[in-house]
Amino acid sequence: MKRRFNPSTAVLPCPVILLSVAGSERPNIITISWVANVCSAPPTVVVGIRPTRHSHGLVTETGDFVVNIPSEEQLEKAVLCGTRSGRDHDKFTECGFTAVPGTKVKSPLIRECPVNIECVVQQTMKLGVHDLFIAEVVAVHIAESMLDERGRLDVSKLKPFTYVPLTGHYWSLGSLLK
Amino acid sequence: MKRRFNPSTAVLPCPVILLSVAGSERPNIITISWVANVCSAPPTVVVGIRPTRHSHGLVTETGDFVVNIPSEEQLEKAVLCGTRSGRDHDKFTECGFTAVPGTKVKSPLIRECPVNIECVVQQTMKLGVHDLFIAEVVAVHIAESMLDERGRLDVSKLKPFTYVPLTGHYWSLGSLLK
Repeated sequence: MKRRFNPSTAVLPCPVILLSVAGSERPNIITISWVANVCSAPPTVVVGIRPTRHSHGLVTETGDFVVNIPSEEQLEKAVLCGTRSGRDHDKFTECGFTAVPGTKVKSPLIRECPVNIECVVQQTMKLGVHDLFIAEVVAVHIAESMLDERGRLDVSKLKPFTYVPLTGHYWSLGSLLK
Repeated sequence: MKRRFNPSTAVLPCPVILLSVAGSERPNIITISWVANVCSAPPTVVVGIRPTRHSHGLVTETGDFVVNIPSEEQLEKAVLCGTRSGRDHDKFTECGFTAVPGTKVKSPLIRECPVNIECVVQQTMKLGVHDLFIAEVVAVHIAESMLDERGRLDVSKLKPFTYVPLTGHYWSLGSLLK
């Protein structure tokens, strides 16, 4: 037996990323779950950002951004970056994060996040309350401490977490299934 | 210390969904991780599908699809639907899945999946090896057995799972963090 609900954003579980972007005054960070890999070659990601958000203007102006993947230990900082506005807050300073220059983009990486994905915006689309930014991945950086002896990502060290929009909760990863 | 890698689809962890779609011969199912909520209102999702995949033609023809969210117990069926082609295989039958008519779309729901999201394609874009389908959510169904006494989704009953593209592994969810 199924119950029918109003249409909503029910795809789950979602990634949680910290998007960092350059700014004329200071760089900013925004937490985003409306994000995905959508094309393998060229590697392409999309993010949905509300036009009212400070970072929307910064990404539009800069034309690039960095997707930083936080660890479980950085959950509170992710919540902070998702609820305060960069118009009034220096989120790098408030989170104790370090801005590291990008290698291929103008936007800075967050040093403390174990994975950084440099992205160049290819196209923007109006969808509704969110705009869609379609961006090509131009570089990926992973902390040495998150790699195994063969140089491959060790997810149990990375400890990424997920967001479930239907309930508004964050969950850790559990065990390797396959 | 960070190590730099070639550009790749490194956003993680990703949702894993079974996309079901109507077909003139028979309906089909394809497993997809290139998927996300991207706009809250109207609720909008995107999926990336290779033009070579059988379901690409079916979604283009039908103009709608259903995003079905599987449980951990359905992982092997998800792998099957991601590796066999609907050109030669009746994946509903091979998985023991039941096609239930959509309430707002022509494509069928998968009865055995605990969450079904009916979607109508709004726009298609060429990105590279994957095309992007942008679709509006028009109905959401959740199994009664996955709801708590207040009628809200209980994620610990649903047991969704995630995919980590950098390693090619599937992970369960662990514990509620916040």
